[in-house]
Amino acid sequence: MADTKQEYDGLGLVETQTVELFQSGFEFESGVRFGPITVAYETYGTLNEARDNAILVCHALSGGAHAAGWHEDQRKPGWWDTMIGPGKSFDTNKYFVVSSSCIGSCYGTSGPASIDPETGKPYGLRFPMVTIRDMVEVQKGLVDFLGIKSLLCVAGGSMGGMQVLEWTVSHPECVRSAIPIATTWRHSAQQIAFNEVARQAVIADPAWNQGDYYDSEGPRLGLAVGRMVGHITYLSDKGMEAKFGRRLRGKEKYGYDLSIDFEVESYLKHQGSSFVDRFDANSFLYVTKALDYFDLGERFENMTDAFRNAKCPFLVIAFSSDWLYPPYQNKSIAEFVRRAGGDATFCEISSDYGHDAFLLEYEQQASLITAFLERSQRPVHSHA
Amino acid sequence: MADTKQEYDGLGLVETQTVELFQSGFEFESGVRFGPITVAYETYGTLNEARDNAILVCHALSGGAHAAGWHEDQRKPGWWDTMIGPGKSFDTNKYFVVSSSCIGSCYGTSGPASIDPETGKPYGLRFPMVTIRDMVEVQKGLVDFLGIKSLLCVAGGSMGGMQVLEWTVSHPECVRSAIPIATTWRHSAQQIAFNEVARQAVIADPAWNQGDYYDSEGPRLGLAVGRMVGHITYLSDKGMEAKFGRRLRGKEKYGYDLSIDFEVESYLKHQGSSFVDRFDANSFLYVTKALDYFDLGERFENMTDAFRNAKCPFLVIAFSSDWLYPPYQNKSIAEFVRRAGGDATFCEISSDYGHDAFLLEYEQQASLITAFLERSQRPVHSHA
Repeated sequence: MADTKQEYDGLGLVETQTVELFQSGFEFESGVRFGPITVAYETYGTLNEARDNAILVCHALSGGAHAAGWHEDQRKPGWWDTMIGPGKSFDTNKYFVVSSSCIGSCYGTSGPASIDPETGKPYGLRFPMVTIRDMVEVQKGLVDFLGIKSLLCVAGGSMGGMQVLEWTVSHPECVRSAIPIATTWRHSAQQIAFNEVARQAVIADPAWNQGDYYDSEGPRLGLAVGRMVGHITYLSDKGMEAKFGRRLRGKEKYGYDLSIDFEVESYLKHQGSSFVDRFDANSFLYVTKALDYFDLGERFENMTDAFRNAKCPFLVIAFSSDWLYPPYQNKSIAEFVRRAGGDATFCEISSDYGHDAFLLEYEQQASLITAFLERSQRPVHSHA
Repeated sequence: MADTKQEYDGLGLVETQTVELFQSGFEFESGVRFGPITVAYETYGTLNEARDNAILVCHALSGGAHAAGWHEDQRKPGWWDTMIGPGKSFDTNKYFVVSSSCIGSCYGTSGPASIDPETGKPYGLRFPMVTIRDMVEVQKGLVDFLGIKSLLCVAGGSMGGMQVLEWTVSHPECVRSAIPIATTWRHSAQQIAFNEVARQAVIADPAWNQGDYYDSEGPRLGLAVGRMVGHITYLSDKGMEAKFGRRLRGKEKYGYDLSIDFEVESYLKHQGSSFVDRFDANSFLYVTKALDYFDLGERFENMTDAFRNAKCPFLVIAFSSDWLYPPYQNKSIAEFVRRAGGDATFCEISSDYGHDAFLLEYEQQASLITAFLERSQRPVHSHA
């Protein structure tokens, strides 16, 4: 992991834009038709005349459209600022990078916290449930709106990686290369289990009130507990031991009461409560449910068939200590692609950062991604 | 894992007894003096005349004194019935097996749900916080009361294994052999983290009411969520995949709402709510805190020093897919003992059952334990 950069070398100030799409309604995978859909997005760099230099980046569970650069009022840059900018892997001097907030979440794209124009109040649970495929179809609407016929690359980690995979299968003709990172082709029983416990923590909070809490503080305690569950899965045993060990927090000896004794407890509490300030509880339920629904092979005979049409090259990146989306799942993706006759590179980066490594270990990823993007642009079978 | 036994070959009906110890007060590790302490215990087999055939078994987080045989009103035998009984590893034809409920828990030994004679109401949070060492000191009081000077063996898994280790260090003269199973010599940051999230789930429930809930239903939802967190850590990724996969529960297609879709969700909900019916929420907080406090090396220069006086042979058993108390932690225990000049055998049993394997994989353990107990009874350096 690299040091914090002393001098900022990125995009500078950026702004989120919004557009209303699917005027006649968006058809959700569940069969529900609903809309129009507002989409919040950011773009970095310039779309070239041939309109063939666009890269779509897809965010993870708690991310949004703001992937790079700074918003005037924020203390941190976008979630993938290490990778997107002039001279970076997703080089905005060369590429036109598009990032949008996914449907169902709470950063500007339509979701359960959006206002229902008929009532002037948030939809709450009346908003349709979403799937990874719905997220991709809304992104496809945005890409069409931007006049992009084909994406040079679709890239993302964790939930973003699932969207990448869905793109290659649902719209193979629009994707010229794919970078799924720290992800899976379907949620396993354990992955569903962690999400379900996190959801139950929200639902158990009386302040959740069946999703109708927008005139109150909402289920702050339940959502914080739900997020704490997640945070354990983002770190590794070894990483936690190195970061916290059994260090006490603000005391020299155990308190012998139920207050916080250990640093790691304090860290989790902080992660829980700061999440509550920036995320909507219903969106948390919707997006975790979308993850659990994800099974790319479901509508195919098998996973090899799923990738039969996905002709683009894949760079699949995993992290050794990631036990939430373990290397074996990522490796399977590459194997399915190869069995389907495709071109897949699998790289396992050695790291103690667990799942968080996909955002923290950017230097090793940067060189892999830069080289992969250059290779992907070279014509195949060139014998000039 | 063995099949369910068609014919019951165990102890038959057993009863829990209680005794009041520490009449002048028990001194907790925290420094608080409190008492007397009621201890609930069961014994199986007969103490021989020499009083040297006693084995103490120590229960895990949610267990109690009822380790083997049946209680008249229950559908299941005690938690280690597979191991304790006539002809079994802890052979009640040969050994006198003692099992007691630990202090702080809720199965008859004093804890936060016990009645304060001064008020006629449960102590709640006025009950002192407990540690693994406190549990062992109360067991020592029971062993003294039973007239046992030296235990042939102390054995237990998970939290029970920590008690085993504490016995060998705190009372080395009383322990002639030790079997710690699926355990650790100190709680790691990740282990603390899982417990803290589970506690926060209880504490976040308004019905917990600062531990003063005994005139109501108590924090049923919060405790259920807390237990669900635990249950994920008791299974393995592979085991969950085999047991549940992505199988749906009572439906053919996703519900596209927030109801239960998957079998694994239903399993966790069931585990959560059935736990609430049999366990006290404050005890859950106390006992998980005792686990987190556990660090056997804390009062020594290092872990080798900790085992310097523990002269008994150790059989340390771990399970390959146990990621809650992983093999590497168990292996460390054996290494510390050996470095301290002791005799330790480390066995890693291959299993997909995760931490639960310590209760499920009894056949492989049985042969190891039977042989170890026989070896432990043979005089060392016999050249007859």
